[in-house]
Amino acid sequence: MAPRQPGDEVREPPEGLGTDMINFRSDNNASVDAPILEALIAEASKRDDAYGRDEVTAKLDEEWSAVFETAVHVIPVLSGTAANAISVAAVTPSYGTLLCHRQAHIVEAEVNAAGFFQPGLAISSFEGAHGKISASALQAALENSPWKSWNRSQPAALSVTQATELGSVYEPAELSELTDIARRYELCVHMDGARLANAIAHLGCTPAAATWRCGVDILSLGASKNGCMLGEAIVVFREQYIPRVRYKAKQSGQVAAKLRFVSAQLRAYCRGGRWLRSASRANAAAERLARGLAAIDRVQVATPPQANIVLATLPREVIDALRAGGFTFNDWDRNGTVRLVTSFDTSEEDIATLIQAVRTLVGRSVA
Amino acid sequence: MAPRQPGDEVREPPEGLGTDMINFRSDNNASVDAPILEALIAEASKRDDAYGRDEVTAKLDEEWSAVFETAVHVIPVLSGTAANAISVAAVTPSYGTLLCHRQAHIVEAEVNAAGFFQPGLAISSFEGAHGKISASALQAALENSPWKSWNRSQPAALSVTQATELGSVYEPAELSELTDIARRYELCVHMDGARLANAIAHLGCTPAAATWRCGVDILSLGASKNGCMLGEAIVVFREQYIPRVRYKAKQSGQVAAKLRFVSAQLRAYCRGGRWLRSASRANAAAERLARGLAAIDRVQVATPPQANIVLATLPREVIDALRAGGFTFNDWDRNGTVRLVTSFDTSEEDIATLIQAVRTLVGRSVA
Amino acid sequence: MAPRQPGDEVREPPEGLGTDMINFRSDNNASVDAPILEALIAEASKRDDAYGRDEVTAKLDEEWSAVFETAVHVIPVLSGTAANAISVAAVTPSYGTLLCHRQAHIVEAEVNAAGFFQPGLAISSFEGAHGKISASALQAALENSPWKSWNRSQPAALSVTQATELGSVYEPAELSELTDIARRYELCVHMDGARLANAIAHLGCTPAAATWRCGVDILSLGASKNGCMLGEAIVVFREQYIPRVRYKAKQSGQVAAKLRFVSAQLRAYCRGGRWLRSASRANAAAERLARGLAAIDRVQVATPPQANIVLATLPREVIDALRAGGFTFNDWDRNGTVRLVTSFDTSEEDIATLIQAVRTLVGRSVA
Amino acid sequence: MAPRQPGDEVREPPEGLGTDMINFRSDNNASVDAPILEALIAEASKRDDAYGRDEVTAKLDEEWSAVFETAVHVIPVLSGTAANAISVAAVTPSYGTLLCHRQAHIVEAEVNAAGFFQPGLAISSFEGAHGKISASALQAALENSPWKSWNRSQPAALSVTQATELGSVYEPAELSELTDIARRYELCVHMDGARLANAIAHLGCTPAAATWRCGVDILSLGASKNGCMLGEAIVVFREQYIPRVRYKAKQSGQVAAKLRFVSAQLRAYCRGGRWLRSASRANAAAERLARGLAAIDRVQVATPPQANIVLATLPREVIDALRAGGFTFNDWDRNGTVRLVTSFDTSEEDIATLIQAVRTLVGRSVA
Repeated sequence: MAPRQPGDEVREPPEGLGTDMINFRSDNNASVDAPILEALIAEASKRDDAYGRDEVTAKLDEEWSAVFETAVHVIPVLSGTAANAISVAAVTPSYGTLLCHRQAHIVEAEVNAAGFFQPGLAISSFEGAHGKISASALQAALENSPWKSWNRSQPAALSVTQATELGSVYEPAELSELTDIARRYELCVHMDGARLANAIAHLGCTPAAATWRCGVDILSLGASKNGCMLGEAIVVFREQYIPRVRYKAKQSGQVAAKLRFVSAQLRAYCRGGRWLRSASRANAAAERLARGLAAIDRVQVATPPQANIVLATLPREVIDALRAGGFTFNDWDRNGTVRLVTSFDTSEEDIATLIQAVRTLVGRSVA
Repeated sequence: MAPRQPGDEVREPPEGLGTDMINFRSDNNASVDAPILEALIAEASKRDDAYGRDEVTAKLDEEWSAVFETAVHVIPVLSGTAANAISVAAVTPSYGTLLCHRQAHIVEAEVNAAGFFQPGLAISSFEGAHGKISASALQAALENSPWKSWNRSQPAALSVTQATELGSVYEPAELSELTDIARRYELCVHMDGARLANAIAHLGCTPAAATWRCGVDILSLGASKNGCMLGEAIVVFREQYIPRVRYKAKQSGQVAAKLRFVSAQLRAYCRGGRWLRSASRANAAAERLARGLAAIDRVQVATPPQANIVLATLPREVIDALRAGGFTFNDWDRNGTVRLVTSFDTSEEDIATLIQAVRTLVGRSVA
Repeated sequence: MAPRQPGDEVREPPEGLGTDMINFRSDNNASVDAPILEALIAEASKRDDAYGRDEVTAKLDEEWSAVFETAVHVIPVLSGTAANAISVAAVTPSYGTLLCHRQAHIVEAEVNAAGFFQPGLAISSFEGAHGKISASALQAALENSPWKSWNRSQPAALSVTQATELGSVYEPAELSELTDIARRYELCVHMDGARLANAIAHLGCTPAAATWRCGVDILSLGASKNGCMLGEAIVVFREQYIPRVRYKAKQSGQVAAKLRFVSAQLRAYCRGGRWLRSASRANAAAERLARGLAAIDRVQVATPPQANIVLATLPREVIDALRAGGFTFNDWDRNGTVRLVTSFDTSEEDIATLIQAVRTLVGRSVA
Repeated sequence: MAPRQPGDEVREPPEGLGTDMINFRSDNNASVDAPILEALIAEASKRDDAYGRDEVTAKLDEEWSAVFETAVHVIPVLSGTAANAISVAAVTPSYGTLLCHRQAHIVEAEVNAAGFFQPGLAISSFEGAHGKISASALQAALENSPWKSWNRSQPAALSVTQATELGSVYEPAELSELTDIARRYELCVHMDGARLANAIAHLGCTPAAATWRCGVDILSLGASKNGCMLGEAIVVFREQYIPRVRYKAKQSGQVAAKLRFVSAQLRAYCRGGRWLRSASRANAAAERLARGLAAIDRVQVATPPQANIVLATLPREVIDALRAGGFTFNDWDRNGTVRLVTSFDTSEEDIATLIQAVRTLVGRSVA
């Protein structure tokens, strides 16, 4: 089973790009936001109880409940994969099907963690422009499902990524349309909010309006992409899920001994709306980048970014030269489209340098 | 998650059709072949050890090894789902991907048993005319897989159904082409042989030529569709899989207390090539049926059957009237194509009755 | 991990004992009861729908509901291991603990099928005389459990075997005492009724009084030990478990294509109280055997059998000679106690022959 | 299943003890060691690749290989539970049994994570003085295992905790004796080294001599108990385990996006032998504490500590008063034995304060 011929790894350039590179590859590659680091430093000299029984963790629910304007329970975990897998396992029985977009992270980059956390769970994915599930596709899929068959997996849950893996953002009305359909068929709704902050920053609505008021039952809330150091969160909107989520977190090794250090980050992340401000910065950087690139001949930016991801199409030789010149980013497809991700710490200088480099390289390349 | 609106159940007519119907719905609905029943009756008065430690089971490997012209180990199980799931779990690690056709039974009608038996296993399915995986599609899928990525499931096994769920049959050369590609990428090869007997009967080749000589490592061998009462078999061609297959069979409750009664059937099934003769009868019935239907106006039989399945397109009102008249069969799609399955016990009278009924109903219906 | 030195296999004599032996090894080794075989023969010539959608299966619930004097749902499965594992998985979450006796079949001889069907499930077993869980041991175990700890598995279900693996039988009042304690701690109750028929025959009470009226929520009902050919049943007393049990049966390959042949057996098993009559015969044989052995010098039968198992202590050389002489049975321990199991088809002649042989051999052996 | 009556939680005092308490409850409750924090601060301002493809992680194997004097592969994870479960799942098949001490953390406080990571895995635990598995108990257990039975789980791996959960330490010769027995039966050997550093500090031997030279195949290396903030490590001594461990880590959500922050800690932990120095400090504190307590009337310290755990028996009223007075620690049993754990940051003042408090309280209490 060990492959002889490496395939064409579209999104994963060779390893070891190091720290001299200018990072447009992922918001996971960013630094740590100052208030987050400060919170860790402040906690580091203290002693307190382990496994979440500490004073820092004790305030987590209260603070995030205020943010979401409803009682929530927050379970800190290490990774988005864990947040997603534990969440979908909580709302999908072993004979259930999880519905999601073909390009969902859950499908593409989690080594089927969902199927590991809930053995037997099936995933049914479908198309949708811009990474967004269309209501008609969902409706059709649910109408045509083998309901009441004892021989077929039963649709049980819907997972929507907000903002999507392509960086597009659902309007609350679009989300509600999807969740209304889901509910009609008694599906639970999970939101992969790895970049939820970026979506909310774009929409300018409240966190409540972006999640549970749109019918979301359980949320993977991204933090490490947006300034945290180590940690993400599961936000549970429905009390009945809490035991199974908490126990699965423990059983899967997601409850750190010194959990308070993850909680401390999540509270600093929340404090004063830091998470939304960091996301706004990243979004603004993406917007500037997109505008600058779109103005260059032979460069296409098909849609203006709604979050912190820019998909730009460049001549192949420009792509290669940019990499040789120290910029890191992933290919999006084999037709010259690249994915540029901005982070809370992407500087104006980084943006300007990239735009200038593209301009120069395009100028040099054969038309 | 309990659905309110039953979907349009394409392939599963309402329950309780009873025994007065003329069965073209499935070879699973057939009677029990006489030699199989005789073997059970003969064994029923005896006493012998349980869990496979008996004298009947002791001869299973020897007799099937002779059939396959190589040393095999046979593990009796209750169902095709168990045979498939245990087999693919044996050759696919939890982080592996199983490749198969979009219409594979494993994908469509086993409630993701494969993902239950091997938690984390991912399934990647693709298109192919007539239910057959094309070599170029397989090659492309494997070339484009995220080899060596620690973040992506790794292709690990290929499952081919022979004869396919549509009743088509791979030529040995076609199979070898697929398994050669698979091996180049170090994939293991599983064959879902629910209707292998029908394929072999069609091909006129040896069981060896149809399986391990074509690169098959492990086989689900169908028996209940072809005259047996209760039971199927896993045929293991590679010794290193035996322990994990045997233990998984036990751990999943597939080892019957009085296992000798499954073994007795499998030996009677094998004896004197009964399995191939039963399959030939079913194939011949399908051929007669197809010829008869194709000769009727406004009825299309797109491809001549290669095994015991006929896909015929009829006017909708004819389909409804046939059902009202006591014939059972499944819809294949929503465009008037139905799936007619013949069995070892489908009589000439059954065939003639159906053809005549279609002719009459077509005559009556508005063109 | 392949062992070099076979351990002392206390209960599993070498393989291949064949059919000439006189069987006291297991009721699994018995023949098939005539009405069961007749039902299979009658069904064998018919055609009907697969996967349980047939006319035979359609009556299963009705007939067994009458037997249990309450609405039950019956799910046919292949083995006791499957019946147990699917049942306990239905009533124990992944973070739950199943409580049972140290000698429970679930613990000793199922390759931890329970932990395979419900990944993460823990088993906590404890002692009890005669294979029976004592109320005080259960009470103590539950009092001392780490309730409400997010770091420890939570007791979730109790499994009692009736009749026990040692052949002892709980009085209904004893069972109720256990289930009352269980319920106080909100545990679900599973009964491993592999030999329930023998227990009921001994008690002379109704099936209802022996099961749900004693607080049993879900039951593994043994059939193959008591005259059936292939098959056992899960009997569900609580409606909310039905979907998860049915889907798990399908997902684990326990739904046979020609399920009607298992259903036919289970209905013949039930008809006219056949199951209880067969068990009575086996119990009576055990009683005769025990009386005869107890009368022999240097043979101890510690407790009179309550079901169809006799534990008798014999001199070692007698044990060896019996085996050499064609009797099969298992060692119970290393101190000369053997387990003799009678079946519905154990003849008076079998009993007399064994008693005589023991008498003779004891006479010959050195005191 | 929700318990009504909380049991007597022996080791888990009520929540919310906060930071004013003097911590003898767990080394998990300690602060963060300065060099670890510095390494995190240094890395926090940088950008680098995610999921372990960064420059920091790139050096992890090299540095720890030097420590262990052999080529090792280090996989960072979040918790000891994850390290243990992934490790044992790598060396135990689903039909395998893991052997360990009755008081192993794997058994007592991981919600059967091992059985979740490897569905079907069985755990067989046994007694041993001072938390240490005795060679004779292991030998007996293996001799009496049901080798070669297809109906019983097969012993597959041994897990030893070093230092044990009671704080005792195996001599290398004791470990080798155990692993020699294990190997004779072809078992793999896992070491739960949550407090390995403390054991090595006590033994004064090399890390190599304490692990792979004693026959250990895979190691859970504790870090958070010994000065780190968030993270532990799996150290793989045998190359063939690497793929399954790495993929299981990813699939279970143990691969953090900004993995470099766990790696940075693990490298600072290793640098200049910091891990062993921190452990030595904790051990020395335990020794002082034990001497001081043992000198007090009516206080028993049954065995001198070998690592950083002191088990001391005190009058009940003294225990209660200590808690009221601000000391946190766990009960070890119901007979007045408490578990006092020292950490790398336990000050002389902490020790002196506790000893003095005990002396005073004992003086006041009625003899």
